[in-house]
Amino acid sequence: MSKKGEQSRQKLVDATATLLQRQGYHATGLAEIVAESGAPRGSLYFYFPGGKEELACAALEASGARWREIIEAVVGSSHDPGEAVETVCRFLGEGLAASGFTEGCPLATVGLEATNESELVRTTIAKHYEGWTERIGARLVAAGVDAESARKMATFALATIEGALLLSKVARSPAPLFEAGAMLRALVGMLPGR
Amino acid sequence: MSKKGEQSRQKLVDATATLLQRQGYHATGLAEIVAESGAPRGSLYFYFPGGKEELACAALEASGARWREIIEAVVGSSHDPGEAVETVCRFLGEGLAASGFTEGCPLATVGLEATNESELVRTTIAKHYEGWTERIGARLVAAGVDAESARKMATFALATIEGALLLSKVARSPAPLFEAGAMLRALVGMLPGR
Repeated sequence: MSKKGEQSRQKLVDATATLLQRQGYHATGLAEIVAESGAPRGSLYFYFPGGKEELACAALEASGARWREIIEAVVGSSHDPGEAVETVCRFLGEGLAASGFTEGCPLATVGLEATNESELVRTTIAKHYEGWTERIGARLVAAGVDAESARKMATFALATIEGALLLSKVARSPAPLFEAGAMLRALVGMLPGR
Repeated sequence: MSKKGEQSRQKLVDATATLLQRQGYHATGLAEIVAESGAPRGSLYFYFPGGKEELACAALEASGARWREIIEAVVGSSHDPGEAVETVCRFLGEGLAASGFTEGCPLATVGLEATNESELVRTTIAKHYEGWTERIGARLVAAGVDAESARKMATFALATIEGALLLSKVARSPAPLFEAGAMLRALVGMLPGR
């Protein structure tokens, strides 16, 4: 792929990722993606012959990897896993508020509206949720928590964070995320083996 | 309103509620609503001159009230609030699985995709989330928990349940909901004043 081609492809993926995060799968049309991206219209079907579904999966891959990096960075710089989970909640609440409550989880909206119509979309999102959960679980195991308790706690923490992102968006207040962070930190602190 | 008119209106509301729950706001068009409902096409703008937004809000009202009744029924028949929360999670997990993982929270999908474009939709959903939270909180207060701890725990439980509904849908497994129920029950059992 030429450098210019790679740039066009990346612009399409970035624009799609932002639109999926803000408004979801069904509201996002190919014409809007091309307009937002600034990429030549012809590059769309050249790089994504599978159309919207293929482009959406590439965007979900990129967003999932980006949030994985955020989780990695916070986990890597925190003294204990409870602190890490609370920091993630604070970071997400501040980011959501700064975006005017438009930018929550980049996978969740599509996860609720489109996973029944595209198995490719569903498995892409499922894979990233599993990856995030594994990363949180690994940090708990490193702190001395047994593997099964760590897996359950990591899934529980992700569920709470996803739901708090929804409640914060609907209420236009980061409070549900901040409160969830404080309670998850306390809960992680109670796990045996720490 | 004539009896027949009332029936047409109700059919439109019910069909919209189901479609919003399964696929969200943007995927649901007026033609599909009319076709699914079996109501005469003319009744749509007669009863809902505000079109899709007005009809969606009526459907969200109906769904929010229905879930409130479910919460009431479970809370009213449970011995303690922790058991009630676990029972709700089990009920929701079984319902989600029985629907082929199409019917999760009737408000959440719209809450993520459409609250930035319609303030009427946003406030309708926010009102019902607050109502559900208040009902759970009141049960905790009745069990001896102080008002502020009860409010926080109720919001936390709703966040966890909403997120677990998302993870269960994406994973096509009720396990995240069942596990969330068990952990929330344990957590409620630890609250002071019980």
